[in-house]
Amino acid sequence: MPIVTIQQFPRDLAQKRELARRITEAFVEVYDLKPESVQVFFNEIDGEGWAKGGVMGCDNAST
Amino acid sequence: MPIVTIQQFPRDLAQKRELARRITEAFVEVYDLKPESVQVFFNEIDGEGWAKGGVMGCDNAST
Amino acid sequence: MPIVTIQQFPRDLAQKRELARRITEAFVEVYDLKPESVQVFFNEIDGEGWAKGGVMGCDNAST
Amino acid sequence: MPIVTIQQFPRDLAQKRELARRITEAFVEVYDLKPESVQVFFNEIDGEGWAKGGVMGCDNAST
Amino acid sequence: MPIVTIQQFPRDLAQKRELARRITEAFVEVYDLKPESVQVFFNEIDGEGWAKGGVMGCDNAST
Amino acid sequence: MPIVTIQQFPRDLAQKRELARRITEAFVEVYDLKPESVQVFFNEIDGEGWAKGGVMGCDNAST
Repeated sequence: MPIVTIQQFPRDLAQKRELARRITEAFVEVYDLKPESVQVFFNEIDGEGWAKGGVMGCDNAST
Repeated sequence: MPIVTIQQFPRDLAQKRELARRITEAFVEVYDLKPESVQVFFNEIDGEGWAKGGVMGCDNAST
Repeated sequence: MPIVTIQQFPRDLAQKRELARRITEAFVEVYDLKPESVQVFFNEIDGEGWAKGGVMGCDNAST
Repeated sequence: MPIVTIQQFPRDLAQKRELARRITEAFVEVYDLKPESVQVFFNEIDGEGWAKGGVMGCDNAST
Repeated sequence: MPIVTIQQFPRDLAQKRELARRITEAFVEVYDLKPESVQVFFNEIDGEGWAKGGVMGCDNAST
Repeated sequence: MPIVTIQQFPRDLAQKRELARRITEAFVEVYDLKPESVQVFFNEIDGEGWAKGGVMGCDNAST
């Protein structure tokens, strides 16, 4: 550990690559850990699998 | 928050829409929250990704 | 399944009892399941274990 | 409960079937539970959804 | 990975130690992994944080 | 969303505050999101609730 699990909308690989790099860097610098101890998991969920305010993402034009 | 994560078999959108509406309504009424603070995530898993009693769902006719 | 995991601020038992009852009822009615198949887990996290907008809950008077 | 959630690379069904059988057996013997109380969920994530040491799995030949 | 997260009632350390040993052994033998790649997390929840069939564990004499 | 859940050893508030700030900043810059959409949860687990390589953290002097 630490294990980081991210629930998010689908993103392209380049964005996830950059995000994982920066999150890992934050752990290394703030917690003084070796990079290899940090794992990041992306759980990608689209608008048919997520609701906010009781409204599915796919039904909400403003999401 | 609150963040609600549901591990379930795949369901059609109409069912998830109704369930998210009712779960959100329950939080609003019981916890006295604004609807927008409630998010619901559906993690859908089929019978090849779930086991009960040591038997995979896809192997169990009674599941 | 379904398994429902709720990440929330600590609440008293009476509120969690009522919420679990209503969420379970929603699954039974919308998905046509037996009540016993529904399990609800409450993961309670206080303001020192949660951040929104980059600000810890314990630091934010408006949370 | 217990509910076991496994974050892993994709595996074939025969391997998951054997793993679920052995994990369930361990709970039954160590915790003295009925097999039916144990549920196992497999969350399968490929190298475009997972990073270690700040490097995506799909970018790391040694993963 | 793999990362194993277990939602369970509180158990004593000796039981968790034995369970973690056996689960890890199962991964090593079935998936042909090094033991060090397997991490197990115990999320212990008591009867005031868990419901089945819409009834909190602490309210159910048969749980 | 995004919702970020971190499984980690207990850390002091100052470290979690700084980490949440930096993780949120990474999402804002890489995904072009509003900070308020990012929530971070810290699930803190000690050496009696975590194992690596089949050995509980509390049993391993090198952890």
